[in-house]
Amino acid sequence: MKSGLSFLLAARQCEIAELEQLARSSDVVTVLGRLTHALQRERGLTNLFLASGGLHAAELRLQQVAECQRFEHEVRTHLDRLDTDASRVPHGARLFSRIAVALHALDGLSELRSRVAAQAMTAEEASAALSKVVAGLLAVVFEWADSATEPEISRALVALFNLMQGKEFAGQERAFGASIFASGRIDSSTQQQWRHLIDSQQRCMQVFADFTDFTNPEVLAAEQATQEPRTLAELERLRRIGYTVSGQDTMDARLGQAWYDCCTRRIDAMKVLEDLLALNLRHLCERTINRARTDLRDQQELLDALSAQAQATRPGEPALYGPQLERSILAMVQEQSARIQAMSNELDTVRATLNERKVVDRAKGLLMAHRQFTEEEAYKALRQMAMNQNRRLLEVAEAVLTMADVLPGRAR
Amino acid sequence: MKSGLSFLLAARQCEIAELEQLARSSDVVTVLGRLTHALQRERGLTNLFLASGGLHAAELRLQQVAECQRFEHEVRTHLDRLDTDASRVPHGARLFSRIAVALHALDGLSELRSRVAAQAMTAEEASAALSKVVAGLLAVVFEWADSATEPEISRALVALFNLMQGKEFAGQERAFGASIFASGRIDSSTQQQWRHLIDSQQRCMQVFADFTDFTNPEVLAAEQATQEPRTLAELERLRRIGYTVSGQDTMDARLGQAWYDCCTRRIDAMKVLEDLLALNLRHLCERTINRARTDLRDQQELLDALSAQAQATRPGEPALYGPQLERSILAMVQEQSARIQAMSNELDTVRATLNERKVVDRAKGLLMAHRQFTEEEAYKALRQMAMNQNRRLLEVAEAVLTMADVLPGRAR
Repeated sequence: MKSGLSFLLAARQCEIAELEQLARSSDVVTVLGRLTHALQRERGLTNLFLASGGLHAAELRLQQVAECQRFEHEVRTHLDRLDTDASRVPHGARLFSRIAVALHALDGLSELRSRVAAQAMTAEEASAALSKVVAGLLAVVFEWADSATEPEISRALVALFNLMQGKEFAGQERAFGASIFASGRIDSSTQQQWRHLIDSQQRCMQVFADFTDFTNPEVLAAEQATQEPRTLAELERLRRIGYTVSGQDTMDARLGQAWYDCCTRRIDAMKVLEDLLALNLRHLCERTINRARTDLRDQQELLDALSAQAQATRPGEPALYGPQLERSILAMVQEQSARIQAMSNELDTVRATLNERKVVDRAKGLLMAHRQFTEEEAYKALRQMAMNQNRRLLEVAEAVLTMADVLPGRAR
Repeated sequence: MKSGLSFLLAARQCEIAELEQLARSSDVVTVLGRLTHALQRERGLTNLFLASGGLHAAELRLQQVAECQRFEHEVRTHLDRLDTDASRVPHGARLFSRIAVALHALDGLSELRSRVAAQAMTAEEASAALSKVVAGLLAVVFEWADSATEPEISRALVALFNLMQGKEFAGQERAFGASIFASGRIDSSTQQQWRHLIDSQQRCMQVFADFTDFTNPEVLAAEQATQEPRTLAELERLRRIGYTVSGQDTMDARLGQAWYDCCTRRIDAMKVLEDLLALNLRHLCERTINRARTDLRDQQELLDALSAQAQATRPGEPALYGPQLERSILAMVQEQSARIQAMSNELDTVRATLNERKVVDRAKGLLMAHRQFTEEEAYKALRQMAMNQNRRLLEVAEAVLTMADVLPGRAR
């Protein structure tokens, strides 16, 4: 019969299998990041193009579309190589569903681009559609971050995901500002939306900073490059100009290009940091796998010694391991048990930061069920409440959930 | 290249694989429950035996030990059949570690029983040692409850786990009361411990009730049998007698047998309910698997239709599915996406009830790290704080975690 020890070994092997799965996924995260970055640029250029009635950025946009298509092909190639054998993928149901949604969104891109080229949609509509595609890609990364079971790796994935999400808010701000500078119009509701985008970026970058190891000089340097003082000063200056003009003013349309360039410098620096984190994540996975393999080998040797001794005892009699081996077994069981507990404690802490997103999703779901909202309407309603009450999205979502029991006509 | 649809199918297959794993584990949960129940009886009889200086329950205890050995063999046989192939078991690392710890605890039983037979330990020590073995078995069930990803099944597992845990507290109360009645002594600290056991039972049974479907008449009848009025009245009468005697009183030792019998009637009724829930869980798994298989077949047919159509288009050209199939795809992606989201929301709610245990574990870990406590000392310290302040264990554990940052010398 299998002993406790052989289950300890099986547990270790499971850990290694999960780590290997994660190591493979870190490559996919890298190419997803690349496509996300390219789509964010396309969104900015599309906004400049549409808001200026086709006057600006027409050529740049086409070049960007070609780059997006290359990266989309790369993503599809990587996803193709993913092991989708149901019996071998933990959390596969959620992950593959997210991938299906993301791929379906990518399928819609070519029709979207034809309508943009024909100027058959507004800058706002195109921006929303491209943001939805990016959200689909980030949801895949989120699923990976949520499924990691090794705390150090989970920590690295949470940092990376929040950097990507923060960069996406920065990208949305770039597109948002681009259409304001191009149209020369702003009103108080738009101002609120803008502030909201700035706050969302700051929160993501805070979580990123909380979970990042800045004792690594490369990471520190790359992080400081995202805060380059001249770029930041220019960004704040343009934010002030865009933000303080009143309803009927028209703005210098050339400011739009300055805005786009300034945002892009900052976002590109974030991309360099993102690539570095993705590379470090891959190395971290490799180191962790090697360490787990060494441990497994040591435990396997002990188990072999035990089996040899067990076979030396007469059949039917309980094996006597001797006091020294008994102590080794006890130490091993206790060590593993304490390690699993410590991992689980730390994991809970790390994952708590992913909760904000989950709480908001749950509040959205509630509004969809109670008020027959679409997902987009539900999100807009939450955002509107947050803006009106000058509160964080999380707070509003929590308030919605607290009221769940008193909302009428709950569908089950 | 794989389309979004093929990832949808892969997601479905993963769901089915996870469900099948759960269905197999529901059998193991049943045999774990049987062994737990037998060990709880052994603990009660061991307490009667030791606390009475070997006068009571000597023969009954030996019969019970034989039953425990049979059920232990059954558990080991079932665990032996578990698929421990690392690449096929989600959450294997945690589950197998728990199993290793549980098996190691079972390995220590024969030495424990020799010491009990020789009356070489106190009733309290023997009780603590047997409770530790039971805790190890319940931790395995907990791990299964925590790993279910289908909300209805997770709900059923949470109900079952809480019933088992509540029954374990009832069993601890039986052993606890047995030694008080046998020794004829009680003091105020023992009174507090007793109240604590009663409160813990009630909380578990409340969670059980919250997650159980009482529209099933069999379940309702079995639940009502655990609340049989005469047994409850007798239990409360004996609690009152045991609880209100002051320090130096000696009690009628025959009350011990009455106490043991009364507790046992209630606990046995809980066991009948537990078996019913385990059986229902198995049927629920089977129904859910069948439903998922039907869905998968439907989706597979649609995918085949699409592939046929894609092949009919000229190579190199994008496949045109026609508006009707396009709508089917969109509906399928949206339906799956909404379903995954709804499942995830509901799961979070169900799992929140497992959090109490996790919070207590985390607080224990903190005390172990900061004050170099063993796990047992840490738990005792928390329980003592709860009793002194007349607060719930959860509240004390949360308070400990809140103070984490101000505690000195945190080890990492």
